[in-house]
Amino acid sequence: MSDLENCLNTIIHIFHKYSEREGDKNTLKKSELKELLTHELPSFTQHIKDPSSFDSLMEGLDADGDAECDFQEFMTFITMVTICCHEFFEHHEDE
Amino acid sequence: MSDLENCLNTIIHIFHKYSEREGDKNTLKKSELKELLTHELPSFTQHIKDPSSFDSLMEGLDADGDAECDFQEFMTFITMVTICCHEFFEHHEDE
Repeated sequence: MSDLENCLNTIIHIFHKYSEREGDKNTLKKSELKELLTHELPSFTQHIKDPSSFDSLMEGLDADGDAECDFQEFMTFITMVTICCHEFFEHHEDE
Repeated sequence: MSDLENCLNTIIHIFHKYSEREGDKNTLKKSELKELLTHELPSFTQHIKDPSSFDSLMEGLDADGDAECDFQEFMTFITMVTICCHEFFEHHEDE
């Protein structure tokens, strides 16, 4: 597999590592999403000081309102984070 | 960096590896997109037999109609491919 194909595979694998822990094995409940973000995106979550931010994030991601984050909703979040990182580095290069 | 953070970094890096080759350094023209897909997503492109499929793909991705694929448009494509892979593996596990 190429580096990019490995990355897509890793994203799927990480989602399932947490989604399989409790309840529906194909969705993340809030506690699973929080665990995933804390361990897998520490550069992002270290800036979250207010615990209620996780509640707001979950509500924002949960497009269909079932209190669970499915893979499509998770990928929307991953896309947002990647676009933000990309813009951050673009602006840094301009300086 | 965690595995997931490394993946997001790799996706950004791969986009720029190709977007920087010709013209606007922050967008992929059709030839750059084709090179990227051929080398970085071979499992996907090996099934494309008709060369006009790349034209159709580019038209589909180019949401703002400027004949270039910017990073947001590229991430939409990566998300679609990842969701398709995820669904493929889900259905395979059900069998």
